[in-house]
Amino acid sequence: MNAVGLNAFLPTPVTDDGALLHSHLETMVDRVVGPDIQSISVLGSIGIAPYLSRRQRREVVETAVAAAGSTPVVAGIGALRTDDACRLAEDAARGGASMLLLTPVSYLPLASGEVYAHFKAVARVTDLPICIYSNPATTGFTFGLPLLAQLADLPTVRAAKLPLPTDTSIADELATLRGSTDLVVGYSGDWGCAEALLQGADCWHSVAAGLFPRVAGALTAAARAGNRQEAERLNNILAPLWSLFRKHGSIRVIYAAAALLGQYDAHPPLPLRRLDRVYWPELFSAIAPLS
Amino acid sequence: MNAVGLNAFLPTPVTDDGALLHSHLETMVDRVVGPDIQSISVLGSIGIAPYLSRRQRREVVETAVAAAGSTPVVAGIGALRTDDACRLAEDAARGGASMLLLTPVSYLPLASGEVYAHFKAVARVTDLPICIYSNPATTGFTFGLPLLAQLADLPTVRAAKLPLPTDTSIADELATLRGSTDLVVGYSGDWGCAEALLQGADCWHSVAAGLFPRVAGALTAAARAGNRQEAERLNNILAPLWSLFRKHGSIRVIYAAAALLGQYDAHPPLPLRRLDRVYWPELFSAIAPLS
Repeated sequence: MNAVGLNAFLPTPVTDDGALLHSHLETMVDRVVGPDIQSISVLGSIGIAPYLSRRQRREVVETAVAAAGSTPVVAGIGALRTDDACRLAEDAARGGASMLLLTPVSYLPLASGEVYAHFKAVARVTDLPICIYSNPATTGFTFGLPLLAQLADLPTVRAAKLPLPTDTSIADELATLRGSTDLVVGYSGDWGCAEALLQGADCWHSVAAGLFPRVAGALTAAARAGNRQEAERLNNILAPLWSLFRKHGSIRVIYAAAALLGQYDAHPPLPLRRLDRVYWPELFSAIAPLS
Repeated sequence: MNAVGLNAFLPTPVTDDGALLHSHLETMVDRVVGPDIQSISVLGSIGIAPYLSRRQRREVVETAVAAAGSTPVVAGIGALRTDDACRLAEDAARGGASMLLLTPVSYLPLASGEVYAHFKAVARVTDLPICIYSNPATTGFTFGLPLLAQLADLPTVRAAKLPLPTDTSIADELATLRGSTDLVVGYSGDWGCAEALLQGADCWHSVAAGLFPRVAGALTAAARAGNRQEAERLNNILAPLWSLFRKHGSIRVIYAAAALLGQYDAHPPLPLRRLDRVYWPELFSAIAPLS
């Protein structure tokens, strides 16, 4: 597989004491698979991967793969330590993942050479394609173009999931990347992804699609067909949700939305908190038109 | 205890496959305890705490406490999850630590209310005094004054370990903090700590003191006595080491320095790397006058 089209990120349903809710995860996967999306991702940031144990992460992959049928499952394998990331890659491969999503989780800030060696070590573990996951807001690490080009030369590194650029346009960033790598390039940051697709991005790595695949799928199809008017119309319907994501962090919003939708009534692991109930009426209004 | 004077941070000697080198840790503690320092800290950032297992962290505390004799041991208990941080606090208390050093380790960025609840939950676990550990470079979280004041009202929160300020002077920051909290205030960022002490900081949380307690102790004594000339003379002797810390990150430098000093020849956990050997002659020159 490669990361093209709409990649729907799923939150991980766990109880407060950390037990994985298999049946809830199955239901979430069931609801999201279909013609609207091209892949699902588990154990991304919204999937609270760094807060889970190795065993829990293995179970998430296995359960999601079993429930997803022919839809490819991308598995997040980010870890602070290279040896742990390698083990998570093995687990994900054994569990039936179709692609690995690798972010350089950091505590002490990493140097580019360290990140390169980390990816190279993980890439040696399996034949699965790897998507580079750049998320400076969570890792503190910013991928420069030289490093992306170096990583793209590793045979199984195929794609990149990038944050919305702040110092250039998406079109310019895509042109630069395509001039020096053969990476399939997608974006996260749901509020800017309609524009990213309209400017030619290959993939929308979407948090919203995990709960609202229909509208996210329609937006993706319109934008990839170059229908700006329809893409912007759908994006406007999603705008109140984007506003909540940006104000409170999508992790807090998505847990509250899953509860409001009756999908599962849980909290992210403390110290993270679900959106305060005072904002639930606003959230309800934001998601009512989306289901 | 409280964090006053010179607090020496120790790296954690582990093998590449993660085994704790107890005898090396004992030797490091033996070498550092004495009249130059007022406390030692294990499992801070330089102690690679987030890269270690709970069992390893418990062993580090127990070994350090046994070796430190009457010198108080501060134990880092930072963890992504509140439940994990609480368990680490219990372990540290049982292991004989005299103070807890708590940093809000983050992956998904935390809100102030979440950090407050995290500290409050951990403070409920033991009666040990807590030092707030602010390190935006590793956690992505910046403590505002209102949060520090709120935390200072928790009965066991006694001290703060702050990064060197970038938007104000240390004297102004100290005046502000002392106007609204009763926290004992220390600084990390070795290259700026002579000045911090001269401006009235209570404590130097020092990486260098873990390997070079004599010179760091002499600097601390001079600065706390208001002897600017002597403090600056000693700080100038340390300046080449500060330059390496700032250029390469102290974690990489300290592992190489420990090897050069014959203390232990190990690497930090990958993807972190020890200082490249090409810089070892420069490091050798920097540390030769310090032992």
